[in-house]
Amino acid sequence: MSCNPTDPLQRQVASLVVVRASGSMHDSQRRYPQWELNNAQLQDLLQRGVGGVILLGGSAVELQQRTRQLRRWSEQPLLLCADVEEGVGQRFEGGSWLVPPLALARLHARDPQRSLALAQRYGQCTGEQAKRCGLNWVLGPVCDVNNNPDNPVINVRAWGEEPETVAALASAFQRGLSSSGVLGCAKHFPGHGDTTSDSHLDLPVLPHNRARLDQLELRPFKALIEAGVDSVMTAHLLLPQLDPQRPATLSRKVLTDLLRRDLEFNGLVVTDALVMEAITRHTGAAEAAVLAFEAGADLILMPADAAAAISGISQALSEGRIPLQRLQTALQRRRETLERCATADDSSPNIVDQAHQALEQELVQASLQLHPSSGIPAAKGINLIRIDSVWPCPALGGKAPALHHPQILGYQPVLIHPQGLSPWRLDPEAPLALELLGDGPVLLQLFLRGNPFRGERDRREPWRAAVRQLQDQHRLAGLVIYGSPYVWDQLKSELDPAIPAAYSPGQMPEAQQQVLQALLQGKITSNDTADFTD
Amino acid sequence: MSCNPTDPLQRQVASLVVVRASGSMHDSQRRYPQWELNNAQLQDLLQRGVGGVILLGGSAVELQQRTRQLRRWSEQPLLLCADVEEGVGQRFEGGSWLVPPLALARLHARDPQRSLALAQRYGQCTGEQAKRCGLNWVLGPVCDVNNNPDNPVINVRAWGEEPETVAALASAFQRGLSSSGVLGCAKHFPGHGDTTSDSHLDLPVLPHNRARLDQLELRPFKALIEAGVDSVMTAHLLLPQLDPQRPATLSRKVLTDLLRRDLEFNGLVVTDALVMEAITRHTGAAEAAVLAFEAGADLILMPADAAAAISGISQALSEGRIPLQRLQTALQRRRETLERCATADDSSPNIVDQAHQALEQELVQASLQLHPSSGIPAAKGINLIRIDSVWPCPALGGKAPALHHPQILGYQPVLIHPQGLSPWRLDPEAPLALELLGDGPVLLQLFLRGNPFRGERDRREPWRAAVRQLQDQHRLAGLVIYGSPYVWDQLKSELDPAIPAAYSPGQMPEAQQQVLQALLQGKITSNDTADFTD
Repeated sequence: MSCNPTDPLQRQVASLVVVRASGSMHDSQRRYPQWELNNAQLQDLLQRGVGGVILLGGSAVELQQRTRQLRRWSEQPLLLCADVEEGVGQRFEGGSWLVPPLALARLHARDPQRSLALAQRYGQCTGEQAKRCGLNWVLGPVCDVNNNPDNPVINVRAWGEEPETVAALASAFQRGLSSSGVLGCAKHFPGHGDTTSDSHLDLPVLPHNRARLDQLELRPFKALIEAGVDSVMTAHLLLPQLDPQRPATLSRKVLTDLLRRDLEFNGLVVTDALVMEAITRHTGAAEAAVLAFEAGADLILMPADAAAAISGISQALSEGRIPLQRLQTALQRRRETLERCATADDSSPNIVDQAHQALEQELVQASLQLHPSSGIPAAKGINLIRIDSVWPCPALGGKAPALHHPQILGYQPVLIHPQGLSPWRLDPEAPLALELLGDGPVLLQLFLRGNPFRGERDRREPWRAAVRQLQDQHRLAGLVIYGSPYVWDQLKSELDPAIPAAYSPGQMPEAQQQVLQALLQGKITSNDTADFTD
Repeated sequence: MSCNPTDPLQRQVASLVVVRASGSMHDSQRRYPQWELNNAQLQDLLQRGVGGVILLGGSAVELQQRTRQLRRWSEQPLLLCADVEEGVGQRFEGGSWLVPPLALARLHARDPQRSLALAQRYGQCTGEQAKRCGLNWVLGPVCDVNNNPDNPVINVRAWGEEPETVAALASAFQRGLSSSGVLGCAKHFPGHGDTTSDSHLDLPVLPHNRARLDQLELRPFKALIEAGVDSVMTAHLLLPQLDPQRPATLSRKVLTDLLRRDLEFNGLVVTDALVMEAITRHTGAAEAAVLAFEAGADLILMPADAAAAISGISQALSEGRIPLQRLQTALQRRRETLERCATADDSSPNIVDQAHQALEQELVQASLQLHPSSGIPAAKGINLIRIDSVWPCPALGGKAPALHHPQILGYQPVLIHPQGLSPWRLDPEAPLALELLGDGPVLLQLFLRGNPFRGERDRREPWRAAVRQLQDQHRLAGLVIYGSPYVWDQLKSELDPAIPAAYSPGQMPEAQQQVLQALLQGKITSNDTADFTD
């Protein structure tokens, strides 16, 4: 069947497709132009009946305009969503960017009541800001149990390392989110916590059987389903014990038999992005969408080719490969879910209110760890900063505290990132090429949390040996980890107790500010740079 | 006199002050927080009667909201301006970013008619987009004659290297700007082209006498005054032959005797930013504003302390140090100028139209220079990119062609910037530390145009020797200069004619696209990276 925008069946199918677009208004502003439709394509697809858009990039205020524009371009109510698991500011400048969920799991062990209250405010803050930006669907909470510290893609995004903690905190987040009237999404079903490969790059295999899943991975999902979560997102994982042929996203055994029948979930099932390598490496664009829909998904997220996905599913329906009843059920679920959620509250450009600012600060404060010490001394030294990438780099772009505060004490910033010169040499005991840095003490700040698309790269960096090397040479002035608690635990064990050190799960400027306020002990002034224009 | 917001004299004086703010809505988005007022301060100052705001940073669509907000906060019509000499996209993402003016001067020598037509469209495009963003005042055209290639702060921002060219092209720009109804500003009076120090960092001294100024520096200003330019901005320059005591910005001899009396300019005179080191190093915040106003300025731009500037000038007026007539004249000029300009045209989020896109492309195409060659060969090589800074880096932030296209041929990007590891060693004949780069041919792309706040830094980088070094070792796969024609002329003279090479005065993605399309000879595909989220 070819793509025919006036065909009523195709229009119905189109409403179940969610395409990707930039949160910025102009084509030239797209951050990932190869994955983000241009405005002409987007307008065309919305006019053909495409029913949802996932947005990324730009500012929160611009997103208000963007979502208004998308609603104008569509004849039907739209699902407008974003991956704002860590607050709207994680993806859209100007929103609140909150510490990653795993921070609250650590707090939960010490103070469960406070942790649960914070998780609920976390959800409420995210929902309120999403609604002010014109979004009606937050793609969270993550319900994966991070019981594998080497997980390259879940990691600090998880609400815990045990199923009870994840179930409790993710439910609290969902309660907060619901109170704002914005839809939530439990992900990645049936559980992405125990993998060591990145499904953005290849298909991970999970060897567990149903009994083990019941005991561990499924428990948070059961809790969220019981709490009435609006949608569940599938994982691109192969679970041979459940279905040796097909990854969860494309598996009827996982989506229909397990999720619908056994777990009695009756809300929207949405695929994870079908453009991910775990799917595209093995299955064509139209066929992946057909298989996912056939398996039990209601919504098709980011198909590699939206028009092909629409005509593929339409053809499978009209040929009887998929019963029409499946379509009617999915449409009805979409309709009912949309009726339940609040309308956009985008009349004011004030996205962030004081309660949100206080929450962002409190979350940083509650999760900060300080290595007892006397503070970093003033010296002509080096502020060595390790980042994943320079563009994007939401933690540092601009006048971030991590870059600028240490300058007041004499520490000049040197950035280490994959697109710069390498600081490494081939000596496993002394892997940092210190001759490249020049003389003086080194304040080491590592922004390292385990982000997608990085595969093994982060784990191969020998920071443990580098910390020993700097310490042996009496050149380590201080150490800060922003992100992974696992890296912090590892490096802390190497540290001389006299070395000032700190850990924050957050990478945002607020985390840098609080960390450096403590380590620099009040020597921060605001006016530390002269330049005022580009 | 202390600051009293209800005092009528102080309110009148306040209307002549232009303060600095971010183009983004939220305090957390400010790019230069030490120079950009927060929203509480800004709202307070506008309520006290401050009459203008200069904006920088953020996106063009967000700027629409921002200027609406500022107008809401003010009881009077505001002057809303920006340094968008090279198009709105130079400062605000999503607008058109045009090649720097000097590109058209080079074209003017070959084809004056086309060059003048392009300069007029350049002004019109900038004015139309400014108006759509809610701005009513463009701080351009630059009227400085760049007769000194070592000028660290004017350089490619000038409309030419001889007074006739600058006069003709800047007038054409102003005609285009006027046709949009947006105000213009001839700067930096009496001429900043022949300096070798940066007034952002210190006070440059210009030894010329009046006869020389008449012959060279003043001619473009005379042409613009004759053409009815709305405002003139002063330079932070000491001209001992005109006034041995005071820089032009604070000199009655320059502003009143020369500009008002001899050149008969009757529009608004605005200071350059009073926070610049050239002023603040020598004069206090209140006194600088008083001296500028006393000398003949009508508007005080970016005083180091707005409240101090307002009470200082008010006191000088009430004590009779400055006659009240000066205030009345300045207020009247401001009123009349504002009546003349168009109101904001911000009803649509479409800032850029097709004519603007075509202009951006045509300007790149008209100024592109290619070194005849056979194209860059595919190889496992290095794409060595030199930039001024990583944040901000409007040329590259995101998936820019200069970063990503060479990857298709096998060239991996390595960024060189002042906050990374240094690529230099102390050998003047072979200054590049090639051992840091690894093996393979090197495609060298230099983003180098002479930006403010960089002092001598750019000139000290030994690119000439580095090009010789790479060429001697048969490792130079290609060379591209984005920016300075002087650097291009110098390096071109070193080049083996067999080496593919190109020059564009522009640094924007459109320039990168056209350059690499030519050098890579059609081997560019769009889908060259896998990652689709941060």
